[in-house]
Amino acid sequence: MDLITMNNLTNEESISLLEDAKKLVPVAEGSVHLPLLQGKVLANLFFENSTRTRLSFETAMKRLGGEVLNLSEVGSSVKKGETLYDTMQMIDGYADVAAIRHPKQGAAQYAADAVNIPILNAGDGAGNHPTQTLLDLFTIRQGQGKIEGLNVLLVGDLRYGRTVHSLSHALGRFGASLTLVSPNSLKMPEEIVSDLKSMGCDVQESDNLSSSLESSDVVYMTRIQRERFPDEAEYEKVAGIYKLSKENLSSVRSGMMIMHPLPRVNEIHSSIDSTQYAWYFKQAFNGVPTRMALLCRSLGVDVPEVIG
Amino acid sequence: MDLITMNNLTNEESISLLEDAKKLVPVAEGSVHLPLLQGKVLANLFFENSTRTRLSFETAMKRLGGEVLNLSEVGSSVKKGETLYDTMQMIDGYADVAAIRHPKQGAAQYAADAVNIPILNAGDGAGNHPTQTLLDLFTIRQGQGKIEGLNVLLVGDLRYGRTVHSLSHALGRFGASLTLVSPNSLKMPEEIVSDLKSMGCDVQESDNLSSSLESSDVVYMTRIQRERFPDEAEYEKVAGIYKLSKENLSSVRSGMMIMHPLPRVNEIHSSIDSTQYAWYFKQAFNGVPTRMALLCRSLGVDVPEVIG
Amino acid sequence: MDLITMNNLTNEESISLLEDAKKLVPVAEGSVHLPLLQGKVLANLFFENSTRTRLSFETAMKRLGGEVLNLSEVGSSVKKGETLYDTMQMIDGYADVAAIRHPKQGAAQYAADAVNIPILNAGDGAGNHPTQTLLDLFTIRQGQGKIEGLNVLLVGDLRYGRTVHSLSHALGRFGASLTLVSPNSLKMPEEIVSDLKSMGCDVQESDNLSSSLESSDVVYMTRIQRERFPDEAEYEKVAGIYKLSKENLSSVRSGMMIMHPLPRVNEIHSSIDSTQYAWYFKQAFNGVPTRMALLCRSLGVDVPEVIG
Repeated sequence: MDLITMNNLTNEESISLLEDAKKLVPVAEGSVHLPLLQGKVLANLFFENSTRTRLSFETAMKRLGGEVLNLSEVGSSVKKGETLYDTMQMIDGYADVAAIRHPKQGAAQYAADAVNIPILNAGDGAGNHPTQTLLDLFTIRQGQGKIEGLNVLLVGDLRYGRTVHSLSHALGRFGASLTLVSPNSLKMPEEIVSDLKSMGCDVQESDNLSSSLESSDVVYMTRIQRERFPDEAEYEKVAGIYKLSKENLSSVRSGMMIMHPLPRVNEIHSSIDSTQYAWYFKQAFNGVPTRMALLCRSLGVDVPEVIG
Repeated sequence: MDLITMNNLTNEESISLLEDAKKLVPVAEGSVHLPLLQGKVLANLFFENSTRTRLSFETAMKRLGGEVLNLSEVGSSVKKGETLYDTMQMIDGYADVAAIRHPKQGAAQYAADAVNIPILNAGDGAGNHPTQTLLDLFTIRQGQGKIEGLNVLLVGDLRYGRTVHSLSHALGRFGASLTLVSPNSLKMPEEIVSDLKSMGCDVQESDNLSSSLESSDVVYMTRIQRERFPDEAEYEKVAGIYKLSKENLSSVRSGMMIMHPLPRVNEIHSSIDSTQYAWYFKQAFNGVPTRMALLCRSLGVDVPEVIG
Repeated sequence: MDLITMNNLTNEESISLLEDAKKLVPVAEGSVHLPLLQGKVLANLFFENSTRTRLSFETAMKRLGGEVLNLSEVGSSVKKGETLYDTMQMIDGYADVAAIRHPKQGAAQYAADAVNIPILNAGDGAGNHPTQTLLDLFTIRQGQGKIEGLNVLLVGDLRYGRTVHSLSHALGRFGASLTLVSPNSLKMPEEIVSDLKSMGCDVQESDNLSSSLESSDVVYMTRIQRERFPDEAEYEKVAGIYKLSKENLSSVRSGMMIMHPLPRVNEIHSSIDSTQYAWYFKQAFNGVPTRMALLCRSLGVDVPEVIG
């Protein structure tokens, strides 16, 4: 099973993965030792910088007794002019499953087409980032018990941010209402908005964060990613435009969740870290059980009903 | 047991290693879990870029239940002026066996002399690359059932290419006939050619690839390695001089094998990838069982007669 | 249990760790397989170059059956502007214990305050390096059977060298006499000297190495660290000022030990390597059993009384 976009999963399959992830939490925390993937090898192919995604894949595999090969562009034959196709043929022979992050949109699908082993897209340029979406859904269910009927704010760079592209579709499919908050230059691409609407999703657009906070169940902040801007001047205009601090939260719902795929720069003030609203660090941890569930699924290994 | 050059192995020892490697294929593929090297530590010392060699050593060790330490020049004390001798003393204390790649010819032997643990040469400048030779011999035996009496073409950079230096000797010792195809500026060093002849090997030299294809059992292509040329202009003259595509293969023998140590740049057109002649990806995979057999041998661990 | 400075340990706790380390030597050597830390994950966070410290932590963890995540500044989100606080929150979710090296003094304590998992300081700028001190104490006890009453020379860069700062305090606490040998510009900071004296330690200062050799039990050489000097000209003045070669050792005590945290540049001539006085390579190896003992302690895992 490859996971290139969330479209590779039905809603039922997604929920089943999230249920497996829930069962695997004690293994992810290290309190239960469960070597389900002993003897299996994950190739972690990161042709673009990453910390959380790479390390949480690595932790997920290792906590399940599996092994990890790390490959980055630094120190690899990519520098000698090797094609992604050839690199993937090698990986096909050395590993049982591969996670790939690549600066070019479409690279993960290309890699999946080139080999027999399952490929898990860990982010392809401005394309998709489905494992982030799964852990985001996991986190929202953890906090709210459901997804349907929630009011979710997606805030920041909605144009270049692959995370919010993948997530908005998934939220729409699960029946959430969306408010898209961005400066005009970083609006969600029109085809995504019309897709969302055509699937019956209630979508609002705004450039004002504070007016939308009160009625939100989830506020999903994102970093304005300097590295995705073709033009530094355009970046400077919008950098730091949306910031949350404790003062902004006086009239929000008591169960409201603030999320962020991290790293944050200054979108969320540290005064929020110790409040009940801060879910971003739990969210980062949730990458481990979610990716554990996905690794088991892609390798055809069943997660036991009862763990620990 | 160190492996610095193929001269460290008798023909019988080489064959015995290749037989062990054959038995280990199901372990290399991940279909059998056999932790023969549990508790053992391999140091992967790569003072020069590598992907296939480094990763296949790592996969070999991990599939056998062992552990791997990775050290590259980046992020190491080599930058603080530490000698290879001192670095090796440290490794002697931390690992049970080490694979070393180094830009300087002779470095692997120097490392072996400095320590007690077995040293496996993973390529030393324009010197030797014996584990590549072993996997090449493994692949030829896999395709042809034997080495003796085969017509083998070695093509490309025969001057700077350590791979073909190691391989030509080994093929000569096992009774193959060699045709050495290169531009004049990249001819096989004379002392190697005369060595080959003095051991009774049938050696031809040519600068023409196509005229030699018909009668070949194995065509071993190599990349012209830009990084080995003292002069960029010299590189430009010969870059891309030998290329194979599907059209060149109309009158070759049906069992003919095309091999390449990889990475390729444009020596072999992708139209060949799906033909029966393409052995280079299988060859890359064969690095895993071959290095498994070598790791077991160097650590004094017997490979069981029956596996799986 | 965090280990940020040696002050976190009573003398009794230090000795207990060193006794555990002694028991673990056969595991560190790889002659006994003892997976005490199976299922546990160590995060190796190296925001500054290191070889010995990083690799010996990694070997220690792996020889005990545990897993290791490596994070360096290269290829991490630190480049995207992430704070150490946020990075540590992530690590808190992914690992059971973390070793951290950081160029800024105080960073290890800051990291420890930020998370719940145990933090082991692997060197923070010109601050502390307690795991080096523990392995130094282990080595001295191995050679001399005790610490109390020994004459120890600390030689070289006593101003910027965190290793000798941590070590001098510990030696003072265990009742050794110290001779501090350095050029005037690299003298031990006055507050450390007065600290040592106030705890009753016999401390001499000198700029002459050879006159102090005869009466020494341990000569602890250090590298003058170019990277700690604000001014290259200042470095050039003192580089290479203290060098030992075999000729200097004609009248030393027969049990005298020469130690060095390594890497050395030219402080100790290679003619000494094969003498009875050379302890620096054993010292490097001792990092493994010492860090094994510390990893077990910090994770609450008891080291068995009898091993092997």
